[in-house]
Amino acid sequence: MALQSLTETVRVQVRFSEVDSIRMVWHGNYVTYMEDAREAFGRKFGLEYMHIFESGYLAPMFDMQLRYKQMATVDDILLVTITYRPARGSKLIFDYEIRRESDNALILTATTTQLFTTRAGEFEPSCPSFFEEWKRENNVLAI
Amino acid sequence: MALQSLTETVRVQVRFSEVDSIRMVWHGNYVTYMEDAREAFGRKFGLEYMHIFESGYLAPMFDMQLRYKQMATVDDILLVTITYRPARGSKLIFDYEIRRESDNALILTATTTQLFTTRAGEFEPSCPSFFEEWKRENNVLAI
Amino acid sequence: MALQSLTETVRVQVRFSEVDSIRMVWHGNYVTYMEDAREAFGRKFGLEYMHIFESGYLAPMFDMQLRYKQMATVDDILLVTITYRPARGSKLIFDYEIRRESDNALILTATTTQLFTTRAGEFEPSCPSFFEEWKRENNVLAI
Amino acid sequence: MALQSLTETVRVQVRFSEVDSIRMVWHGNYVTYMEDAREAFGRKFGLEYMHIFESGYLAPMFDMQLRYKQMATVDDILLVTITYRPARGSKLIFDYEIRRESDNALILTATTTQLFTTRAGEFEPSCPSFFEEWKRENNVLAI
Repeated sequence: MALQSLTETVRVQVRFSEVDSIRMVWHGNYVTYMEDAREAFGRKFGLEYMHIFESGYLAPMFDMQLRYKQMATVDDILLVTITYRPARGSKLIFDYEIRRESDNALILTATTTQLFTTRAGEFEPSCPSFFEEWKRENNVLAI
Repeated sequence: MALQSLTETVRVQVRFSEVDSIRMVWHGNYVTYMEDAREAFGRKFGLEYMHIFESGYLAPMFDMQLRYKQMATVDDILLVTITYRPARGSKLIFDYEIRRESDNALILTATTTQLFTTRAGEFEPSCPSFFEEWKRENNVLAI
Repeated sequence: MALQSLTETVRVQVRFSEVDSIRMVWHGNYVTYMEDAREAFGRKFGLEYMHIFESGYLAPMFDMQLRYKQMATVDDILLVTITYRPARGSKLIFDYEIRRESDNALILTATTTQLFTTRAGEFEPSCPSFFEEWKRENNVLAI
Repeated sequence: MALQSLTETVRVQVRFSEVDSIRMVWHGNYVTYMEDAREAFGRKFGLEYMHIFESGYLAPMFDMQLRYKQMATVDDILLVTITYRPARGSKLIFDYEIRRESDNALILTATTTQLFTTRAGEFEPSCPSFFEEWKRENNVLAI
């Protein structure tokens, strides 16, 4: 049986304070848009930051890769799509695609990898049980 | 006997990501520069955020007034001067003056007022004892 | 005849990156939310930044006053209402009110005053004609 | 003859507004620290944003890869080291290493790749002459 594809899209209006001196979105702000998507994903699929925290864990960023395809400007509406990438073990991997709403132009692709740590910040090498359960419930158990 | 004037100055280099599309510092970023100064003040005079927190209190912002005098641009070096304004009761008031280092031009004046609350967020109407003591030690007890 | 009341409300979802170490919205971020509202106002009533710019002017911030009423936290949905305050001359004044959607709690009130300058940054003491016209069209000419 | 190694280090004090709700530096802020280093590099070696701009070009971000090694917290002083990585053609590649000053702990490694475009945003596939010259002057011409 194929794994389910878990995905969510958020709509982001570029803020005036988010463009730089050539009126293009400052490259660091995409990290914020990606987090917007990640939080919307969490709300949709029950993987909110607070749920992770209350299960006794943190999910700090471990690796982040961004590829910029085209520049976006002030007043652009961006569609940020996040997709869960099934992976074994104690890792949380997401792929992102950001497109401009008006012309569907591809603005950015990215991938983030988060690890699980205890609240005290100790790396947790085995998959936390709450996450194992979440994978099972959502039919995204990687083999 | 005159009250002591408690003051501190920090040097801030404007970041590229802090200027807007006309290459001027985005007006909201001065709030960050003011906080830089407030933290340097805390380190200098023993009124750090952590000291307040460990004494059982928070000092959330209650009122903030900014008056913009001139625009600053990327690569400007700004000197942010913060001065404690003696006040009675459970209030923490600071005055700020931001000048450009190169020509001493006045960029901004501001005043912030913080109140004390318990860690649970309850307003504390009487002056916390740690703060009373801090005022006495620093000779800034307003009459 | 009474002046028209020009107002707009935007809905802002607090971002994880916008809360501080006590999980409350960092006080400087309200400046961003206010700008969100100002831009929505501009789009609704034809007073966008670009319209001002193409008319030959800038409208830099001159004065900003914020009064914090209650703290907002991550995942709060905020309703930011902006209202144009009729004023004579070369000034653009807005009042703001931020409420939490879930319980209508008042989070912040604020007022901003912008002045008009030429694109070169020279203060423009008389009211720009495009703005005079805008006031007339929107029935907000202060007497 | 070996290429010269062009490098610069900047000292960054973590701001209170830059830590998240677990008092750790929010992962997106490292992008800002990296830009701080890139600008200091530009000032040191004559490759400022303005120099690029006045030569008729922009250098937008094309690819960014960050690897988080350890979390940093409020009041940490970070040392951000940037090193130019010699590359052929119309690319500007930098490697970064961020360490905590107090214990030299490695916090983050990263690499950024910028491309050159005309001011109108058209990709420039051949190496701009000002950049060719800069490489020659600094003895970093990749073969």
